[in-house]
Amino acid sequence: MSGPDPRHMAHALRLAARGLGHVWPNPAVGCVIEREGRILGRGWTQPGGRPHAETVALAQAGAAARGATAHVTLEPCAHYGQTPPCADALVAAGVARVVVALSDPDPRVNGQGIARLRAAGIEVVEGVCAAEAERLQEGFLRRVREGRPMVTLKLAASLDGRIATATGESRWITGAEARREVHALRARHDAVMVGGGTARADDPALTVRGLGVAHQPVRVVLSRRLALPEDGVLARTAGEVPLWLLHGPDAPAEARGRWEAHGARLIEVPLGPGGELDVTAALVALGAAGLTRVFCEGGSALGASLMGAGLVDRLIVFSAGMALGAEGLPAVGALGLARLAEAPRFALEETRALGGDVMSLWRRA
Amino acid sequence: MSGPDPRHMAHALRLAARGLGHVWPNPAVGCVIEREGRILGRGWTQPGGRPHAETVALAQAGAAARGATAHVTLEPCAHYGQTPPCADALVAAGVARVVVALSDPDPRVNGQGIARLRAAGIEVVEGVCAAEAERLQEGFLRRVREGRPMVTLKLAASLDGRIATATGESRWITGAEARREVHALRARHDAVMVGGGTARADDPALTVRGLGVAHQPVRVVLSRRLALPEDGVLARTAGEVPLWLLHGPDAPAEARGRWEAHGARLIEVPLGPGGELDVTAALVALGAAGLTRVFCEGGSALGASLMGAGLVDRLIVFSAGMALGAEGLPAVGALGLARLAEAPRFALEETRALGGDVMSLWRRA
Ligand SMILES: NC(=O)c1ccc[n+]([C@@H]2O[C@H](COP(=O)([O-])OP(=O)(O)OC[C@H]3O[C@@H](n4cnc5c(N)ncnc54)[C@H](OP(=O)(O)O)[C@@H]3O)[C@@H](O)[C@H]2O)c1
Ligand SMILES: NC(=O)c1ccc[n+]([C@@H]2O[C@H](COP(=O)([O-])OP(=O)(O)OC[C@H]3O[C@@H](n4cnc5c(N)ncnc54)[C@H](OP(=O)(O)O)[C@@H]3O)[C@@H](O)[C@H]2O)c1
Repeated sequence: MSGPDPRHMAHALRLAARGLGHVWPNPAVGCVIEREGRILGRGWTQPGGRPHAETVALAQAGAAARGATAHVTLEPCAHYGQTPPCADALVAAGVARVVVALSDPDPRVNGQGIARLRAAGIEVVEGVCAAEAERLQEGFLRRVREGRPMVTLKLAASLDGRIATATGESRWITGAEARREVHALRARHDAVMVGGGTARADDPALTVRGLGVAHQPVRVVLSRRLALPEDGVLARTAGEVPLWLLHGPDAPAEARGRWEAHGARLIEVPLGPGGELDVTAALVALGAAGLTRVFCEGGSALGASLMGAGLVDRLIVFSAGMALGAEGLPAVGALGLARLAEAPRFALEETRALGGDVMSLWRRA
Repeated sequence: MSGPDPRHMAHALRLAARGLGHVWPNPAVGCVIEREGRILGRGWTQPGGRPHAETVALAQAGAAARGATAHVTLEPCAHYGQTPPCADALVAAGVARVVVALSDPDPRVNGQGIARLRAAGIEVVEGVCAAEAERLQEGFLRRVREGRPMVTLKLAASLDGRIATATGESRWITGAEARREVHALRARHDAVMVGGGTARADDPALTVRGLGVAHQPVRVVLSRRLALPEDGVLARTAGEVPLWLLHGPDAPAEARGRWEAHGARLIEVPLGPGGELDVTAALVALGAAGLTRVFCEGGSALGASLMGAGLVDRLIVFSAGMALGAEGLPAVGALGLARLAEAPRFALEETRALGGDVMSLWRRA
């Protein structure tokens, strides 16, 4: 048998991407079943996390799966969860070969899926498009390996790096296309997160709108003492779209009770040395609650805390064609750097014009 | 005769661009002489401003110019300067047709060049590629129309819009490719300009280096009382590369004398209401001295003054993959905006990755 054609794995990765934001705490997996270049079945993790990609693709392929090759972006599961193990389903279907991009570091899988396939006499090829698969499945992998979700920080700023005027005016700095892209980014994350300052200043909805998407990401707000407006959009919609409030040990019991009554989920987080919520602990709490991909939309202070703690995995910057000057609110708050050499660094991944704005995508260097 | 092929004017514009930065106070003009699609002569304004583009192209074409078409990016001159009028040279060469992108608003020309050609029986077509020609010749046109040079402002900043750390460290925020592009930009401008703060903090040379370019732009520094280091690179090199110091009426006579002895040219400028040099007057003074294209490299304060006065025609931003935080020096100083609607706005012209940085080019909207 010749080596697998990596275009099928690239195809499976594109399918996998459809699940991003919709499958937590599960990984977004893609599967392509093929024989001699003919596609027999295609599947991706369905909203809510099941059926799994392999199940969908095998159902499509039916009896034709016998003797075919399955390309899967992540090692098939080997444990009984709410569905029988996918490794067993592949064996039962009689596939001849399974091509896997990445082995699953989840301790319940961790090589056992692949072992089970090999034990059944199936040829297994590992590591095809591994780098792309690591990238696509970064949220799931970080949660398994580090206990926290992947963090994407968004900055929508003037070309001199300001996210609001001195008086707090920030609507709108960027144009309609950039704002639309922000909604698409929200939809591809499990949660949208902001600091209490943004919740107080902007009364944001933090929902996905205008894209015909029904599924909403969780909305996460950090506020030590739950000093958040209770007559705003967040309070009003907490019963419809999930709202999780991260607060400190000293948040007043009455405020906790009122927010629970509004429909919010309350998560207590320890304080850091500066008296603010410990951001690392906050992310670990979100990981424990199942989130794999968090989209942080600011503001200045929360973005700086995340950057300072080395927790910003990806950064997406929208730069608008206007200058707001030094009195404007900085895109990133104080970092306390003593030297240029200490600055958090990011590697450029992509840049392009978006409407009249510039979009640039960076990853932690 | 059919209409002119605009590709020849596009060619002439590319030739014209070679003169940018080298021909002030003259316009950078390009000329293509062609007959039935065959190029007979190509010329552009030579360093120092002469010979003119038409002279060069006609010399190349020789006798073949008779009956040919000359494509010129700017109306041929009609007055005797240091060279005889190009309109007369075109008539003498016997060209049948002259295609002109723009008429020359210089009061000494202003339609007379075209009139002279027509009077000699030459067909003249005007306005071909006029928008591109306006853009290319913007510096010359602003000087003629408004008495001031075109201003390009450069910002080389972190992705949160900082041009130095709190302690003034700014070398290097952007990478080698971006810095190389800055040298290429300097070479395409008549002058490089900075505020006194940058001269004091960075001891910059402000020369074009590493590109094999011999011609150096004028170096311009603004300092009301000439409070500039006299033991630095600028003082040391003032005898070799032009250094023009713009100062206020209250600059001490001794400082003026010392800088003149170093080799600098001193230009007195009135003060604005804030007690700083009046930037509009400063640019008019530079225009009177012959400059058509000024490349301002900051810093924060001078950039803000120019923006606030509506004098930034083009903005070039290099964004580096690092964050410096709110304590860093802002890319643009205080603008005193009361509302978002008052922000100076720019239209995106181009963006691309440059090494690990993002380059974006904007024009005043
Ligand atoms: N252009 C844009 O895209 C954009 C996006 C977002 C925001 N904004 C603007 O940014 C402004 C708000 O920014 P901001 O800096 O004032 O507030 P912020 O970063 O949104 O929120 C900061 C607040 O979050 C809470 N917090 C808890 N733990 C924290 C931690 N570890 N680190 C940081 N904050 C923590 C604190 O509030 P508690 O005291 O309640 O704990 C803190 O005051 C608004 O003017 C808004 O318009 C603009
Ligand atoms: N990353 C980069 O690309 C880059 C580029 C340039 C500078 N920088 C950094 O920027 C810092 C310097 O910036 P800065 O804001 O302090 O100084 P600046 O803008 O370079 O110079 C300001 C000074 O220019 C003089 N000036 C005269 N008329 C003026 C007017 N109308 N408007 C503004 N200034 C006028 C004043 O000095 P007098 O009192 O002498 O009149 C004023 O203090 C340095 O730390 C440097 O490293 C970085």
